[in-house]
Amino acid sequence: MLNKELYEKTCVKAYEYLVKAGIAVTEEERKNMEVAEYGLNDLDNIGLELIVYINTMRCCAKELILFPGQTCPEHRHPSIAGELGKEETFRCRWGKVFLYVQGAPAKQPKAAAPKGRENCFTVWHEIELNPGDQYTLEPSTLHWFQAGPDGAVVSEFSTRSRDEFDIYTDPDINPALNRKA
Amino acid sequence: MLNKELYEKTCVKAYEYLVKAGIAVTEEERKNMEVAEYGLNDLDNIGLELIVYINTMRCCAKELILFPGQTCPEHRHPSIAGELGKEETFRCRWGKVFLYVQGAPAKQPKAAAPKGRENCFTVWHEIELNPGDQYTLEPSTLHWFQAGPDGAVVSEFSTRSRDEFDIYTDPDINPALNRKA
Repeated sequence: MLNKELYEKTCVKAYEYLVKAGIAVTEEERKNMEVAEYGLNDLDNIGLELIVYINTMRCCAKELILFPGQTCPEHRHPSIAGELGKEETFRCRWGKVFLYVQGAPAKQPKAAAPKGRENCFTVWHEIELNPGDQYTLEPSTLHWFQAGPDGAVVSEFSTRSRDEFDIYTDPDINPALNRKA
Repeated sequence: MLNKELYEKTCVKAYEYLVKAGIAVTEEERKNMEVAEYGLNDLDNIGLELIVYINTMRCCAKELILFPGQTCPEHRHPSIAGELGKEETFRCRWGKVFLYVQGAPAKQPKAAAPKGRENCFTVWHEIELNPGDQYTLEPSTLHWFQAGPDGAVVSEFSTRSRDEFDIYTDPDINPALNRKA
C-alpha cells in the first residue's frame, strides 16, 4: 500500500529526476504526480512515477520517471469495444531504459526480472533507449521496461490512456486499482 | 525560398536551442530537421523549425523551435472527410511563447503581428506559456504563436498531423507546400 508518507517521499524523489533531466513542470503538476506501485508493495523494484500532461478521448502525453532499476511490469493495451488498443511511443529524455517486447529474446538481457516474480516477465526482446532514442509499440504488444543504474525519465506519446483495461501478466496486479504507462 | 545554405544554417541554429533546452535528439533527427518558411521568404519573422518524433494515423508528437520573435502564422486544422480536425497541446519546454486563439482579445498584446501582414493575424486572445505551461487547442481553433525575446522550444502532442489540409488566414501561404505545427 502506498501511504501518505511513502507517496510524498516518492514524489519528492521523482521530482529530483525531473530537475536532473531539465524538465519543467508546474507546481500543480508536481503536487498531482501519480505513483504506481501496482498493489505489490515493492515500489523500489516495481513501480513508476508519472505526470499526465494530457489525456483526452484522442491522445495522451505523459512524463514517466523510473528510479534506478525500477520496473514497469509486463502488460499490454488491448482493443476495447472495437477501438484499437493504445498505441504508444516511449522517448528516453534522460538516463537509460531497457524496454522488452515480443520478439527474439536477448541472450544476455541487461535488465533482470524482479525477484520472486520472474515468471511474470515473459517477453525478452531488448531495446535499449538512451536520451533521444524512442520506440513505438503497436496496440496489444506485450511489454515491460526497467530503468538503468541512474534511473530514467521517459516521455510517452500515445492514443488515449485507459489504464483500467490494461492486461497484466502478473495475476497479483489489478489494473482497476493502478496507474501505469 | 529555402535554399540549401539557409536550410543548413537554420538547422544548426535551431539545434543550439535544443541544446540550451537540454533536449536530446539523435543524429538522424538532427539531420532531418524540418524548416517551415511558408513560402514567404521571411524566415526570421515567420517560420518554424521542427523535429517530428512520431506521426501515425492516430497520434503525433513534435518538438518545435522558434527563434526570438519568430512567428508561426495563423491557421486552423479542419475536419477532413468526417474525421475531426487535429487536436493539439502545446507545452513550453524552454523560453517563452505567446499563443493567440479565438476569444477576448488582449488589450496590450505582448506579441506583434509580423510587419506587412497584420491583417493575416485576426485572433488576439493571449496565452503566455513559460516552461512547464501548456495549452490544448480543440480542433478547428484558429491560432498562431510567437516566441518571446529568447526564443522557445515547445513540445506538441496531438492527433495525427496532416499539414496539407491546414487552412491559413494568409492567402500567400499554400499549405500543400509547407510544414507547420
